[in-house]
Amino acid sequence: MVERFARRIPEPTVVRLPVYQRALRELAEGGIATVSSAELADAAGVNAAKVRKDLSHLGTYGTPGTGYDVNYLLGQVRRELGLDREWQVVIVGMGNLGHALAHSQRFSTQNFRTVALFDVDPLKVGEDVDGLPIHHLSELNSLGDTSRAIGVIACPAAAAQDVCNRLVEAGVGAILNFAPTILAAAPTVLLRHVDFAVELQALAFYVVHPEASAGPEEDSQPVL
Amino acid sequence: MVERFARRIPEPTVVRLPVYQRALRELAEGGIATVSSAELADAAGVNAAKVRKDLSHLGTYGTPGTGYDVNYLLGQVRRELGLDREWQVVIVGMGNLGHALAHSQRFSTQNFRTVALFDVDPLKVGEDVDGLPIHHLSELNSLGDTSRAIGVIACPAAAAQDVCNRLVEAGVGAILNFAPTILAAAPTVLLRHVDFAVELQALAFYVVHPEASAGPEEDSQPVL
Repeated sequence: MVERFARRIPEPTVVRLPVYQRALRELAEGGIATVSSAELADAAGVNAAKVRKDLSHLGTYGTPGTGYDVNYLLGQVRRELGLDREWQVVIVGMGNLGHALAHSQRFSTQNFRTVALFDVDPLKVGEDVDGLPIHHLSELNSLGDTSRAIGVIACPAAAAQDVCNRLVEAGVGAILNFAPTILAAAPTVLLRHVDFAVELQALAFYVVHPEASAGPEEDSQPVL
Repeated sequence: MVERFARRIPEPTVVRLPVYQRALRELAEGGIATVSSAELADAAGVNAAKVRKDLSHLGTYGTPGTGYDVNYLLGQVRRELGLDREWQVVIVGMGNLGHALAHSQRFSTQNFRTVALFDVDPLKVGEDVDGLPIHHLSELNSLGDTSRAIGVIACPAAAAQDVCNRLVEAGVGAILNFAPTILAAAPTVLLRHVDFAVELQALAFYVVHPEASAGPEEDSQPVL
């Protein structure tokens, strides 16, 4: 797999792989054996040229006139996404967002298992969410093996850097940050940021610049 | 503005503009008059070459040895993002996520004002969140002028397409979808999708392929 990725995959392609994965899974469950790029594009909500280009980054080109083998492609996409193993999710900050994430994660994601919830609010610590207790943040160090753990920061912005530092100290090397602030961490730590304000502003950008989202050019359209 | 964007701006640049906007605003509030691309990169959590390339898409190049004029650049980025006007936000689905979005939007975003909340649950309809009442979804049509409205879908996946259709019928042309499902809408409708599962899988991809997130190549790194 490493060799296959000596050539880098563009970020917009990376975030479309999970969408293809879901579409392929639904096709496979429906007993569909092959799929054309046009059908996969429809299912994923992008155009067919983009599907072909995205999958070519995986070294997959399909068979002209037949398309892609659904099960083979599904296996390949899942392997590239690391979905051939289980990931542990640790959520810090159990306000409305933490609860929403704990729930959505349980119901819609495969291979990601929420294993621990943390907060500092004494009213929340000890409560449980879907059978999983909320621990005090000070217990973060007792997580055990964190080599396959993803930390999710769902606390207020003011506390986010401290939470990030604590996650890194506990050995968590991949962090999804929902707090509206830029975090600093060692370059070895993988940080992703989901920001409601950024999404609204990006949407506003495309409303103001309708020409920016039109047309066939790669990676010029909204991600989905 | 339209002329300036005859050349298309890549999606990864679009989603970094709000981050630059926030960094520039903080610099301006701190009385800083000029900023180098390296300083702006630090504040935004990206590298300096990316900052220069991103801003070049706006036709802005800075002054060698001096950098960028903070207030001028801030004004320019805000105008491109459509932040020289007010946007109205309508949230459908007032579970944990809807509440989290209603709160975060109020506290962290400028120029986006939540004007209406909707749900179908009789236990929620009539409740209020920060003084804003939750209406029944059937009242969506009485929104009035929706030309500057952004619809936010925070309901379960099974209801999302129906909610999307109703938003479009009510005249809402820009929709941010948090439900884990692909929505269909006319090409004139701007749809953006934020999916917790997609974010986790993209993060897992970079854990599995550390080489994909390293190095200077444009748009190969995680967005943030």
